[in-house]
Amino acid sequence: MKANIGLIGLAVMGQNLVLNMNDHGFKVAVYNRTTSKVDEFLQGPAKDTQIVGAHSLQELINQLETPRKIMLMVKAGSVVDQYIEDLIPLLSPGDIIIDGGNSLFTDSNRRTEYLKEKGLLFIGTGVSGGEEGARHGPSIMPGGNPAAWPAVKPIFQAISAQVDAAPCCEWVGDNGAGHYVKMVHNGIEYGDMQLICEAYQLLKEGLGLSTDEMRAIFSEWNQGELSSYLIEITANILAYKEENGAPLLENILDTAGQKGTGKWTGINALDLGIPLTLIGESVFARCLSAQKDERVRAAKVLPQKSRIAFGGERHATIALINAIRQALYASKIISYAQGFRLMREASKEYGFALNYGDIALMWRGGCIIRSQFLNDINQAYNQNPDLENLLLADFFVDAMEQAESGWRQAVIFGIQQGIPTPAFSSALAYYDGYRSARLPANLLQAQRDYFGAHMYERTDKPRGEFFHTDWTGRGGKTASTTYTV
Amino acid sequence: MKANIGLIGLAVMGQNLVLNMNDHGFKVAVYNRTTSKVDEFLQGPAKDTQIVGAHSLQELINQLETPRKIMLMVKAGSVVDQYIEDLIPLLSPGDIIIDGGNSLFTDSNRRTEYLKEKGLLFIGTGVSGGEEGARHGPSIMPGGNPAAWPAVKPIFQAISAQVDAAPCCEWVGDNGAGHYVKMVHNGIEYGDMQLICEAYQLLKEGLGLSTDEMRAIFSEWNQGELSSYLIEITANILAYKEENGAPLLENILDTAGQKGTGKWTGINALDLGIPLTLIGESVFARCLSAQKDERVRAAKVLPQKSRIAFGGERHATIALINAIRQALYASKIISYAQGFRLMREASKEYGFALNYGDIALMWRGGCIIRSQFLNDINQAYNQNPDLENLLLADFFVDAMEQAESGWRQAVIFGIQQGIPTPAFSSALAYYDGYRSARLPANLLQAQRDYFGAHMYERTDKPRGEFFHTDWTGRGGKTASTTYTV
Repeated sequence: MKANIGLIGLAVMGQNLVLNMNDHGFKVAVYNRTTSKVDEFLQGPAKDTQIVGAHSLQELINQLETPRKIMLMVKAGSVVDQYIEDLIPLLSPGDIIIDGGNSLFTDSNRRTEYLKEKGLLFIGTGVSGGEEGARHGPSIMPGGNPAAWPAVKPIFQAISAQVDAAPCCEWVGDNGAGHYVKMVHNGIEYGDMQLICEAYQLLKEGLGLSTDEMRAIFSEWNQGELSSYLIEITANILAYKEENGAPLLENILDTAGQKGTGKWTGINALDLGIPLTLIGESVFARCLSAQKDERVRAAKVLPQKSRIAFGGERHATIALINAIRQALYASKIISYAQGFRLMREASKEYGFALNYGDIALMWRGGCIIRSQFLNDINQAYNQNPDLENLLLADFFVDAMEQAESGWRQAVIFGIQQGIPTPAFSSALAYYDGYRSARLPANLLQAQRDYFGAHMYERTDKPRGEFFHTDWTGRGGKTASTTYTV
Repeated sequence: MKANIGLIGLAVMGQNLVLNMNDHGFKVAVYNRTTSKVDEFLQGPAKDTQIVGAHSLQELINQLETPRKIMLMVKAGSVVDQYIEDLIPLLSPGDIIIDGGNSLFTDSNRRTEYLKEKGLLFIGTGVSGGEEGARHGPSIMPGGNPAAWPAVKPIFQAISAQVDAAPCCEWVGDNGAGHYVKMVHNGIEYGDMQLICEAYQLLKEGLGLSTDEMRAIFSEWNQGELSSYLIEITANILAYKEENGAPLLENILDTAGQKGTGKWTGINALDLGIPLTLIGESVFARCLSAQKDERVRAAKVLPQKSRIAFGGERHATIALINAIRQALYASKIISYAQGFRLMREASKEYGFALNYGDIALMWRGGCIIRSQFLNDINQAYNQNPDLENLLLADFFVDAMEQAESGWRQAVIFGIQQGIPTPAFSSALAYYDGYRSARLPANLLQAQRDYFGAHMYERTDKPRGEFFHTDWTGRGGKTASTTYTV
């Protein structure tokens, strides 16, 4: 019996995907450049399974049923291109190459096109959920050449996480759509984590709560509208004590690393001209956290804000805890609204034809941002697949209305206490901007026309009609003034 | 007599630079692809000057003294590369090609290297100040091959703006340094404009002031620490009445355009991992303003914030006007601190060896962001050329301390009134973050270790020592929990 699929790259993610496929009755052939890894895997984790090994690409290819499906779980970048080049001469028309790494979507755009020219089918797929997800059910976001999907669908939908009997895996769209959606997923993950950090800092520094008190709060929040994997593990982290009984969290250094996909999401938003302020602030917050030594020096030079004594009266504390929860929830809604708004633009710009309800379903299980909340997003898009912005769905209009007052209160509390909440406040500014029919950009346009003759439109004339004013009365195409230092 | 310099590209910027050079006694030869423009220019604006024209590149080259200096004032991108290719065979070793357009700094890096291989010298220079600046004294920011500078320096420093008898032109650094610094200049310009817009909206919507009252306020602000070209023209804009006596500003549509350099600055900051939150928010604010139709629809669906009735008592109004001024000033300091901090990183990353005091001087005159304030920045770097961050200079420590309370008050006022101040609040969050020895990124690192085994450092251990915790007690390299939707 030939193998159903081949997998190249036996790092932990690759191994776990293979074992997951095996569990679901698929026969998998594996190959790794350092071939000793193949033997170790077969004699170790893959012992007593259907899994077969290969010591060369040719041997791997010979083991596969047609159309052949070969999944790459290797480092994103040139390694993927190299394997593609090595595989092309060994494959037949209609065979499928799948890239399951964290590739940039533009690379996947290019590879889909390139393999199509060679008569081969390419899938670029996001795989989220880390090693445990890969082993027991990840969120899988495949895109590329849609002709490849029917052959791969049974395997991917079987091994993915399942929520309410629905697989967290659906065809995302053409070309690099899968990797694009995975990128936005990671950006949203950056945002979710930053929001939780801001809530934690307000609770800890602003209200002076202990880790045990905060653990109880996050556990409670996990029962309500914030219910999610990240809130759950935050409670667990707060509960974790070192051997001496001290909370481990407080001994962890506050310098966050990053692997680049959050950054890519921000760059793409700037490129497409879509406000993605919360994720942008979240990426920059990580960068600032990484400037640890500089901050320690700055803290000695710059005046420290004298904290307004917080009375700590029980009813005031409870009110503020609720306000912080509302700030977290409202800001999270903004973050997803911005992320889905960005995907809507990308879908148009890159021709992905994304289905937003499906995307929400794919993210419900298996991945780091899995949450109840994604059901609500799914329902909003089910009710209106062409929804312009999540914020305009009835459910979220109501949710924002209920959270708004507490949200403002929490941000003001942070400002008064000198506790930075870049994501909470950026989200609030976006909300207030988004629901403003009129923004002060009229002044900005006037300035641009004043110094650069950029022209402006008028509120009392049709769009597309442009005007220039000779602001100084001195004529000429542009105007300037005499300002000198 | 041969010409001192040749210029290619007779659009308005090019024409004005040529006339400016002529005024300062330099003989200029000009060429334009559409050669009728050369004749029109010679018979029009250049009549009765020393300026000479050429109808081919060869003719232009023949008119120049050696080493030849040819300045391109053409569209950034492939047009520049095409001219470079056309010029190379006509030039001799040591000749100089200058690109004065808004090129991306990475292109200038590449061109410097490419021409060096051909024995030619390249300068990529930022030219700021629009058409009027080009005619009467722009800010000029040249970088590239330093061997080219002595030959070009007398011309550029003569035609640039002069402040306190110092030219707003100095050698910026190697390779693309000139275009890099011009890019950051443009990003800062985005920030300055957004800050003024936020102040304007708080005054108008929050305090209900008339355009005449606001004109008086901006005129007054222009006498103090905010004194700058952009504040000056804002007052002039507020003063401008249409024929029927109504303020023109209020009839201008609030949809801001952009030309890309602000966006580039944000992208570069994300790439280098340096927080540039205020400029990022400013770029996104323009994007949001451009979603005019969507905002108008959103304003009908989303609950409008019921404005807290502002009493309008005179002393309260005056206090808030002052708070808004302080918010504008403090945020502006943050923006420049972030911009200069970015340049410090770029200087290290790209080997530019930038001189920050010189950069402040170059921006004091000729360009859109010219201001008194740049003197203070120049002095801070004169006192300490290795200053880690502008916020740590004595002058700015004091300035921030004085402005801080009003700044917080203004941001809170905006939040209470539902008026978005993304740049003011983003700047405040950065300030509060920057002076925090401890940020909540310890929780973020714990989360990353929990779900992805990313490891963390500890506050009680040396940097560079990494730890992983088996958070759930279930062992394995990573841990997960049972969260399901």
